[in-house]
Amino acid sequence: MDVQKQESQSNEQPPNKSKSNDNRRDDYWIGFDLGGTKMLAALLDAKLRVVERKRRKTKGHEGLDVGLKRIVATIESVLKEADVEPERLRGIGVGCPGPLDLKKGVIREAPNLGWVDAPVKEYLEDAFHCPVVVANDVDAGVFGEHALGAARGSHCTVGVFPGTGIGGGCVYQDRILQGKNSSCFEVGHIQVAPDGPLCGCGQQGCLESVASRLAIAAAAATAVFRGQAPHLREIAGTDVAEIRSGALAAAIEAGDDVIENIVSSAAEKIGVAVASLVHLVAPDTVVLGGGLVEAMPDLIVKTVRATARKRVLPSYKDTFKVVAAKLGDDATALGAASWARQLLCD
Amino acid sequence: MDVQKQESQSNEQPPNKSKSNDNRRDDYWIGFDLGGTKMLAALLDAKLRVVERKRRKTKGHEGLDVGLKRIVATIESVLKEADVEPERLRGIGVGCPGPLDLKKGVIREAPNLGWVDAPVKEYLEDAFHCPVVVANDVDAGVFGEHALGAARGSHCTVGVFPGTGIGGGCVYQDRILQGKNSSCFEVGHIQVAPDGPLCGCGQQGCLESVASRLAIAAAAATAVFRGQAPHLREIAGTDVAEIRSGALAAAIEAGDDVIENIVSSAAEKIGVAVASLVHLVAPDTVVLGGGLVEAMPDLIVKTVRATARKRVLPSYKDTFKVVAAKLGDDATALGAASWARQLLCD
Repeated sequence: MDVQKQESQSNEQPPNKSKSNDNRRDDYWIGFDLGGTKMLAALLDAKLRVVERKRRKTKGHEGLDVGLKRIVATIESVLKEADVEPERLRGIGVGCPGPLDLKKGVIREAPNLGWVDAPVKEYLEDAFHCPVVVANDVDAGVFGEHALGAARGSHCTVGVFPGTGIGGGCVYQDRILQGKNSSCFEVGHIQVAPDGPLCGCGQQGCLESVASRLAIAAAAATAVFRGQAPHLREIAGTDVAEIRSGALAAAIEAGDDVIENIVSSAAEKIGVAVASLVHLVAPDTVVLGGGLVEAMPDLIVKTVRATARKRVLPSYKDTFKVVAAKLGDDATALGAASWARQLLCD
Repeated sequence: MDVQKQESQSNEQPPNKSKSNDNRRDDYWIGFDLGGTKMLAALLDAKLRVVERKRRKTKGHEGLDVGLKRIVATIESVLKEADVEPERLRGIGVGCPGPLDLKKGVIREAPNLGWVDAPVKEYLEDAFHCPVVVANDVDAGVFGEHALGAARGSHCTVGVFPGTGIGGGCVYQDRILQGKNSSCFEVGHIQVAPDGPLCGCGQQGCLESVASRLAIAAAAATAVFRGQAPHLREIAGTDVAEIRSGALAAAIEAGDDVIENIVSSAAEKIGVAVASLVHLVAPDTVVLGGGLVEAMPDLIVKTVRATARKRVLPSYKDTFKVVAAKLGDDATALGAASWARQLLCD
């Protein structure tokens, strides 16, 4: 590795530059999104503008050691393409799945990757000789929208990201709202239907059991099977694995009203949950993101907004807006970098 | 008023004492609980120990002007009884009902008092020439438990207080979790039953519509009417206004099993809501308080604890405790004083 000497090299910086870290004009940051199938390294300059991106398959099944090396190689590769020396890195932020030990920067368990006790922070600090901050991937995404995207300048941002499950995050007074040493704001597992369907977590009636893309796909597959959604039948058939956001959007566009009703009904449930979140943490901005929202932003954002506004106490009615996320697939990487910068520089 | 000169007098303090406010050994604080029926002024010393208390009826119906004067007179009276000059007050914290303008310290509307736009902060600052901090009464109570009661040293405290409604509050990293300029954490109005009973707020299935003392009393009155609760019939009859916490506890003690089932069932619903709160803000301590909990602490705390532990994701199971509040009727006044001290001294 060509970065082993970074620490001693950076000590050779002129004193006027090393005095205040914020004065270094050549600071760079890495934001890293460690996803179940893909990883993304983004190189950002001191003003958090993206200089370069590098995407690779995660290949978690190849094991933890190989995986950590792939992360390092991906970061090295993005640095190389941008012609930035590793010693110019001020810090690295990594958005990770699974329950985390935030202080140690360890992924305690990532079922999608098959990893247990992955020492992300320690490994990357050894490799790049700069501070590494680990955050939950959804939290990082919400922080990204707060710092650089759809929720800039907000006092309190709540993010809700429906996908296979429903992820959530909250940025309160410019900080990610976190537990003592772990992430929280598990919006997908608040109970919204006491006698609702079984959730992946083993409980009944969690929000994600009735309103995730997977829940929508299951209802849509049923409609296809019943012959109520001819367009979706052509596009995706009755296999829930094939009924992805794009297929749902295309079927609605083609005229499958029942699919529109299914998506609206899920969005209403998210809207009721958003109303509860408004009552609890009083966000001024609620950001909706993820593939489902990207495929049908108008339908979902409008339905969630209208339902939430109808469901809150009168004094909360005009206190929040509901908007679509802006950063797309970059959100977690950019958010992780911004969060690292905030923790390390503020 | 005998405090007009306070400001100039305090300027005559020796310089070594006025330099840091924390060094003044003679600092006193007023914590004030402005309730719908009673008001309580507590005088606290610099270590937040209660020196003196004074309780009066609020008599909100006599109007705002009379009410503000009663607040001042109650504070003057507690100072007088303790023989403490008003100029030794460092600050006043007031726990108030209703939607508040936190910055201006105004009660925007207090239906129980019949007051609109009550300038509490300005009025008391004019009267006592010291800083006044206004907070929501439940928030102040939860802060009191966090600072001086059942949740000392907690990273994140969630308080749930079932009464006529269900109040809630959250202290996150030693600060009351608040909206931009208003209180939040309206636990009573998160939806727990999509097709549940009509709530006082006009919506359906809010937590307080199924689990407040009023909801319990309604179910209990029905049981009495049906002849299923002979002891409660003797104690309180079928009038929901008479079926208060003490009556419920006495009926259970005397053997009305159906009443115990009704209370347990409500506590289970609170437990499910607590699980959602744990998923969202990851409290390490959940404090249950109010008259209902005080009358039946074992039954309610145990049921809420067991239900919440059963309902959370495995990684949250051992991250929180559920305990009964310790400060009783003092919570709001003591919390308001502690909160004022924290905001003014930290």
